[in-house]
Amino acid sequence: MRIDVKQCADILSKQDNILILTHAHPDGDTLGSGFALCRALMKIGKICAVINADEIPKKYSYLYDDIAPIKFKQDYVVAVDVATPNLLGDLDGQYHIDMCIDHHSTNTEYADNLLLKDVPAACQLMLEVIKELGAEIDEKIAGCLYTGLTTDTGCFRYASTTADTYRAAAELIDLGADNGKINRIMFETKTKTYARLERLALDSMRFYENERVAVITITQEMYRLTGSNEQETEAIAPLTRQIEGVEIGITIREKPDGTSKASIRTFESVNAAELAKSFGGGGHAQAAACRFDCSVKEARERLVEKCGEFLNDRNNLC
Amino acid sequence: MRIDVKQCADILSKQDNILILTHAHPDGDTLGSGFALCRALMKIGKICAVINADEIPKKYSYLYDDIAPIKFKQDYVVAVDVATPNLLGDLDGQYHIDMCIDHHSTNTEYADNLLLKDVPAACQLMLEVIKELGAEIDEKIAGCLYTGLTTDTGCFRYASTTADTYRAAAELIDLGADNGKINRIMFETKTKTYARLERLALDSMRFYENERVAVITITQEMYRLTGSNEQETEAIAPLTRQIEGVEIGITIREKPDGTSKASIRTFESVNAAELAKSFGGGGHAQAAACRFDCSVKEARERLVEKCGEFLNDRNNLC
Repeated sequence: MRIDVKQCADILSKQDNILILTHAHPDGDTLGSGFALCRALMKIGKICAVINADEIPKKYSYLYDDIAPIKFKQDYVVAVDVATPNLLGDLDGQYHIDMCIDHHSTNTEYADNLLLKDVPAACQLMLEVIKELGAEIDEKIAGCLYTGLTTDTGCFRYASTTADTYRAAAELIDLGADNGKINRIMFETKTKTYARLERLALDSMRFYENERVAVITITQEMYRLTGSNEQETEAIAPLTRQIEGVEIGITIREKPDGTSKASIRTFESVNAAELAKSFGGGGHAQAAACRFDCSVKEARERLVEKCGEFLNDRNNLC
Repeated sequence: MRIDVKQCADILSKQDNILILTHAHPDGDTLGSGFALCRALMKIGKICAVINADEIPKKYSYLYDDIAPIKFKQDYVVAVDVATPNLLGDLDGQYHIDMCIDHHSTNTEYADNLLLKDVPAACQLMLEVIKELGAEIDEKIAGCLYTGLTTDTGCFRYASTTADTYRAAAELIDLGADNGKINRIMFETKTKTYARLERLALDSMRFYENERVAVITITQEMYRLTGSNEQETEAIAPLTRQIEGVEIGITIREKPDGTSKASIRTFESVNAAELAKSFGGGGHAQAAACRFDCSVKEARERLVEKCGEFLNDRNNLC
């Protein structure tokens, strides 16, 4: 069932012992919206907690470091920024999910659903929910919500960022969000291991199809040399598409078992999801992924060949 | 003489044949505020033009590509985003400057001065001036102003970005600024020559003082190998400071005559301007520069030694 912001707040007001689920491989938007909601519900007297299937990266600790852990039996379960239950990772199937608050166009509407597909971050939606709940937005809640806004919009850079997103950011800064500090943590800090990996990744970049395709390959050996890991590879994928003239940017990483996974980034001229689909993968129009049962070199050959077909076939315009 | 926004608009309303000067090595804020003012003045019937001492990088062409060049004898001269006349480059001394609209704390107040030091971009101030002028803000003017806001704040990332900056951005998007396109041009596009230079620059990075100092060195040979140039080096400087644990990030580039120039980036723990001052340079607390009459290697040695002193002398806290 679809619900609106007011219905969402009304339902939550009547519940107690509320468990909030966030998606696996957590990012700033799922954690920011989860902890903001948790803090707001606690302010209006609810027992509440946020859980995640995976370890939360240390850089997000300011979102929750003053919340004491609490054990309780949940009466109500809310998933935030979770498009489908299988994105919950190991938490999938462990709870009956009563409500979902999300902004993904791929949302499968698996619960009472507050879904706004045209907002670029769940936190933008959560700000409205918390205002409707009547909870005071202190600087901690403002910081949580700002974190989701900035991380899901690439620091307000992506085309999905709307005037309302900027207005929400202004409101949250007025309420005490430390935008300078949050953006420095999220966008200005590379671990030494990531910095080393990035350097090797850039060294590995090769161009094809008149330099319209750029491919980075990352091997297990590179993780060993740099002390980095697969999780840190996520930040590499956008680098390929930033080169002038590149229409398809691909990052292929070697899995521990010798197979490969490719992340594909494009602009309007090529549909990344269609390209990934050729190899059994999927995703969005400008960001998609697929897997290969072969080495990174062979995956690169197969992908580059397919890129050539796509670039020469203007019927694949998004 | 200091003037306020209303006085500034009143004076401009009474002038005609207005020449707008922008600073040399032009950036998005000087060009954005200059062309926004020019367009607004043209809308209220003024003859007006923007000039710059240097060639304007191609990526800014959307700011002015529909403005027909015009020759006229100026009756009134306005400098925008120009802290001191010598930043005008070859235009310095060629005109009597009647008015200055700026936001730099280092402004030397060389004309009738509309100066707001706590706004992070001249364009934020210019939006107020244009509203006071009563000119209609069309999507071209909105795009010019948004360009300055986003470039001078590192896409709304720097700590100097205020709630009012976000509100101004929201207003400009409502008025038609194409934020997605502008940010893609400004932040998501690297020239191939820059990408090659960046790779060599990262390869050259060395760490000192328990990895609290990172130094990149760029030689003339690297420009030759990559087809890049000194202008493109500006974007390299912030990379050093992004590494976790680094307190002082330095980029030293070799000049054509074999001397060197260092760009210093720090966080709160070290005053970059003080460090640069040790070598006859200067700048801001977290971004400064100085020159050396020696090779990049020798400059690196001298700088690293001085960094050690600064890091060990906590009296240099900003």
